[in-house]
Amino acid sequence: MIRVSILGATGYSGAELLKILFKHKDVQIQHLTSESSAGKAVESVHPQLRGLVSKRLEKLNVKRIAQDSDLVFSCYPAGAGIKSNDFFFRAGLKVIDLSADFRFVSADTYLAWYKVEHSAPGLLKKAVYGLPELFRAQIKEASIIANPGCYATAGILSAAPLLKKSLIDPETLIIDAKSGVSGAGKKLEPRLMFSEANENFTAYAVASHRHQPEMENILNKFSRITPQLTFSPHLVPMTRGLLSVLYATLKKSVSLGEIRSVFVEAYLGEPFVRVLPLGELPQTKNVAHSNYCDIGIAEDRRMNRVIVLAAIDNLGKGAAGQAVQNMNLCCGLPETEGLR
Amino acid sequence: MIRVSILGATGYSGAELLKILFKHKDVQIQHLTSESSAGKAVESVHPQLRGLVSKRLEKLNVKRIAQDSDLVFSCYPAGAGIKSNDFFFRAGLKVIDLSADFRFVSADTYLAWYKVEHSAPGLLKKAVYGLPELFRAQIKEASIIANPGCYATAGILSAAPLLKKSLIDPETLIIDAKSGVSGAGKKLEPRLMFSEANENFTAYAVASHRHQPEMENILNKFSRITPQLTFSPHLVPMTRGLLSVLYATLKKSVSLGEIRSVFVEAYLGEPFVRVLPLGELPQTKNVAHSNYCDIGIAEDRRMNRVIVLAAIDNLGKGAAGQAVQNMNLCCGLPETEGLR
Amino acid sequence: MIRVSILGATGYSGAELLKILFKHKDVQIQHLTSESSAGKAVESVHPQLRGLVSKRLEKLNVKRIAQDSDLVFSCYPAGAGIKSNDFFFRAGLKVIDLSADFRFVSADTYLAWYKVEHSAPGLLKKAVYGLPELFRAQIKEASIIANPGCYATAGILSAAPLLKKSLIDPETLIIDAKSGVSGAGKKLEPRLMFSEANENFTAYAVASHRHQPEMENILNKFSRITPQLTFSPHLVPMTRGLLSVLYATLKKSVSLGEIRSVFVEAYLGEPFVRVLPLGELPQTKNVAHSNYCDIGIAEDRRMNRVIVLAAIDNLGKGAAGQAVQNMNLCCGLPETEGLR
Amino acid sequence: MIRVSILGATGYSGAELLKILFKHKDVQIQHLTSESSAGKAVESVHPQLRGLVSKRLEKLNVKRIAQDSDLVFSCYPAGAGIKSNDFFFRAGLKVIDLSADFRFVSADTYLAWYKVEHSAPGLLKKAVYGLPELFRAQIKEASIIANPGCYATAGILSAAPLLKKSLIDPETLIIDAKSGVSGAGKKLEPRLMFSEANENFTAYAVASHRHQPEMENILNKFSRITPQLTFSPHLVPMTRGLLSVLYATLKKSVSLGEIRSVFVEAYLGEPFVRVLPLGELPQTKNVAHSNYCDIGIAEDRRMNRVIVLAAIDNLGKGAAGQAVQNMNLCCGLPETEGLR
Repeated sequence: MIRVSILGATGYSGAELLKILFKHKDVQIQHLTSESSAGKAVESVHPQLRGLVSKRLEKLNVKRIAQDSDLVFSCYPAGAGIKSNDFFFRAGLKVIDLSADFRFVSADTYLAWYKVEHSAPGLLKKAVYGLPELFRAQIKEASIIANPGCYATAGILSAAPLLKKSLIDPETLIIDAKSGVSGAGKKLEPRLMFSEANENFTAYAVASHRHQPEMENILNKFSRITPQLTFSPHLVPMTRGLLSVLYATLKKSVSLGEIRSVFVEAYLGEPFVRVLPLGELPQTKNVAHSNYCDIGIAEDRRMNRVIVLAAIDNLGKGAAGQAVQNMNLCCGLPETEGLR
Repeated sequence: MIRVSILGATGYSGAELLKILFKHKDVQIQHLTSESSAGKAVESVHPQLRGLVSKRLEKLNVKRIAQDSDLVFSCYPAGAGIKSNDFFFRAGLKVIDLSADFRFVSADTYLAWYKVEHSAPGLLKKAVYGLPELFRAQIKEASIIANPGCYATAGILSAAPLLKKSLIDPETLIIDAKSGVSGAGKKLEPRLMFSEANENFTAYAVASHRHQPEMENILNKFSRITPQLTFSPHLVPMTRGLLSVLYATLKKSVSLGEIRSVFVEAYLGEPFVRVLPLGELPQTKNVAHSNYCDIGIAEDRRMNRVIVLAAIDNLGKGAAGQAVQNMNLCCGLPETEGLR
Repeated sequence: MIRVSILGATGYSGAELLKILFKHKDVQIQHLTSESSAGKAVESVHPQLRGLVSKRLEKLNVKRIAQDSDLVFSCYPAGAGIKSNDFFFRAGLKVIDLSADFRFVSADTYLAWYKVEHSAPGLLKKAVYGLPELFRAQIKEASIIANPGCYATAGILSAAPLLKKSLIDPETLIIDAKSGVSGAGKKLEPRLMFSEANENFTAYAVASHRHQPEMENILNKFSRITPQLTFSPHLVPMTRGLLSVLYATLKKSVSLGEIRSVFVEAYLGEPFVRVLPLGELPQTKNVAHSNYCDIGIAEDRRMNRVIVLAAIDNLGKGAAGQAVQNMNLCCGLPETEGLR
Repeated sequence: MIRVSILGATGYSGAELLKILFKHKDVQIQHLTSESSAGKAVESVHPQLRGLVSKRLEKLNVKRIAQDSDLVFSCYPAGAGIKSNDFFFRAGLKVIDLSADFRFVSADTYLAWYKVEHSAPGLLKKAVYGLPELFRAQIKEASIIANPGCYATAGILSAAPLLKKSLIDPETLIIDAKSGVSGAGKKLEPRLMFSEANENFTAYAVASHRHQPEMENILNKFSRITPQLTFSPHLVPMTRGLLSVLYATLKKSVSLGEIRSVFVEAYLGEPFVRVLPLGELPQTKNVAHSNYCDIGIAEDRRMNRVIVLAAIDNLGKGAAGQAVQNMNLCCGLPETEGLR
């Protein structure tokens, strides 16, 4: 039994983690922290869990958590969990951080994009980027895992196989991505109110979203030339689901079938990536409430341009599902346990 | 008083036309045709019009319509209205066709994309493309007007000013567009059912949608090199609204302010185009139930790439609103009458 | 030209008033107040009005407004506008208050339900309840008008004709009503966030909502026995629209046709009430963006129970549309001006 | 291992059954039938199951199914499965029928409401109504189980405890229920199209819905006086979820706490009914994708009226979830297996 605690358990990722972990046969849930709701029963914050999870939320007590837990999922906003995660790491716990705090090797890049001085820069090099399809071996050995951003998960899975094979020009990458509203979290922002977001579609943070440097930093590992991608996220009037559409120019003429083969081969045996048959396109509905990433491929032959579409559940493969997949890997459990 | 008839009045464009024309002070509605609902009161098909429009739907009687009308709006599906529109044209009526039947100069291109042999190819050269911001002078003189496709309206308005000034490389154009479900019309297709389209986001007809050649044919007029654009449409879980996002590589380094000036100048005095201040992005909600096109501009300076976002109501500026704007122009009425 | 000002113009009712008044040919918009957004252009708060309304929001300056205006629409939350409305009333302006501040004759009832000590109780008796279908004559003469609540509008229009004719037992009234989310205003409440309200349906304030005493107080005028109604409101995952379903036991057996006749007669000549044919039921979609109230009637003959369904747009007939109808009446303008 | 087959597996209930049964550790899925899609892979109809369920759909072959299966779930529309279910019953299989074909004891009532002459009336008396909270003992012994309607499930669970204790007048029952659109199935009906159902709220089949006699027939078992209920269903613009609101007059004054105790006691130990604390109201979101029924209670003390609100997932406890609960019971498996 792995004893796990969830830090910052009142958000959407926290709820999703609870829903998965409650059914996970190798996990025992220990502590759930929340500064604002400490003392309340879980069901008062996540009423869908009434009768399933009967814990109370607690204030963060790092010592007690370190004593009682083998692994923590950290769901705090950027910067807020660095110190405690550093503590847990030193105390020998495994740390899976769902924020961006450990996604960058460089504290300067982190500072530039998140406006937070990193308080444990030494840890950055020890952290492993938790995308199992690309870094499974490292994740298995990792003690601290940076769970990828939702857009980054879909974007990197779309681009990496093509970059690895040098099939596309890394300077032509454009990702136009669309996410359900839960991706923005539980913040009380006007643009996230029902009457504002419903019957509305809009872009935001065009060419300036924080998942752009995250994707570039990771994709850089697979490309001789540093990829620079233009990234435009959008808000879709739905709660869950994310579709990422990547455009890139092929370096040479390759048939659509060959491109698909590259993806099939890259994700051969992957339990959570489904490369769709040619002619089928991914739909967010088909991956909702799952840990799947569905990938579809199209082309504009005239312009020698490939189009890769990837659908995930932003709270599943884009957050909590992937975090559990990472836990399974780094704890030596079957990778799909709790996720099917 | 302009006497108008609507052919194929039971669809969403028909309803929207009725809503606008009913309030238009210079218009008298004559005949509304529908083969399937002939004999029924308008309100039985469009219950929101109960008490406002009290006409009955009729079977198409071209002679009677020609006698009683100065202008027809034709809302038939591709191919179905060519013959009657030819008749009305010869009978001296003005024809505004909301289908694709008269959007191409070449009957071959039309055949290739719509799988319909054009039965009045001679008319194609007489038809004017009804995008007032680009072809106002011709529309004023036109007897037959091809009302643009919804995606084409947004896409062309986004690209034309940049092509005219030779600011962008016409071979780098990518348009990633997103439309509400009413854009697909009233057809009983599984993918358009509520339980399929709700909480779902998906692309369709990637790099193979019929509005792609429509945009290319029109944009070609403004570019020395033939523009070839990669076009991906998507279905958004909302009823109305369309956002088009264009990506293109600048030929030389131009500041965002200068690019915006190009748009401001291009649409100076245009009653239905709003170029947003830098930093603001268009939202479909802001143009819903209107004839506006909101345009916003962003850039990825590193890659010298410009991003142009355009929002319209697919039934407004993307269909019925624009059709009325065209009617106003070709009938010598104030351009904004009925549309504000 | 009636010179009007809107107090508290940044909410949904304010936006809707602006959309209607901007097109109203007998109205000149003078001042728009907002304490939080004073100094900003209207379009920065209501971007859909860009290019249509070019005013700036101002802090409330009662003297200036009194000088420049013939009529004010007051859209403040409960209690916040009592003093200024008292001032405007004394200054000879017409006041149309969209809050509940002047809907009760008794300051005690107001205090009991709104927890606000009424600071101008003397005005309560002078205020007219702004439901034109029932109080048109008084509205025409009124200087201060309490614009009805959205639920109250639909509920009272459903019950009044039956009570007037003594057809139903006033102690059997149950109203189960459902409203779109914009009815709750622009407040940043967790339950109004997209990710909470979407794909969700819930009741709230069951048998304890403030529109219950409002309906009872008004319906009391049409019944010998004081009606006491059980009222349950619900939140529907849509932005606009309200459906009210009333259940009541008939005092004697009356045919459905006769009941419908009672409604037809009661609303004969009413420009904004549509009594549907038997067999048709109101849909909120059909009254969206309009000032209509659609009424449908059904029965459970076995139990001698009548069911009256009424659909309105909560921001139209349920708020801003009705406010303009009231303005038209009390200012001697055509009642439907600006509302069709 | 229970060997199960699903008849009519292409609808929403079929998909939900597959999702549950695929993970059920005591079940082996044998045949999936579909007349229209026979030969296709399951994933071509339910793409969310790609990689999870790899069966093909087959034409109905009753002999083969009888040979290979211990139990069938029958998801055919009314009337279509009577004969085959009769065959399976005679062949010794357990039958769980999700249609209304075996919900009535009287073939005449069935004929009157479903317009189908029952071809196996002898089976009606052998069928058990599959609502475990009320008929668990019979279900355990049953060979043919009529899985309840979605509205009936919520309505009966709301009313039965009060009728059993004679707390309410059975002639005052009103149920105003609201369902997500998937409750209407996959039929291509205009009212179920996204552009019709979205941003719309409407009632349908008021006081004439088929679940009304179903509820009355069952509730009759718990009441000396035959209950006659007025039932109004509504269509909510969401895919999943159902809220039922019951109004009834108390026979004597009972405190809200006492009423709640009646429910707590009635559902003591029930794994899938959650009686909420006073002051909390059920939300469909909290039971989505689950087999729970959440029940909340309120009152209008003045009128001595009780209000019982029940939320279920129409595809979970309202269809497939409950069917699996019934399977677990009649096959001697743990009741919650596969459902948590």
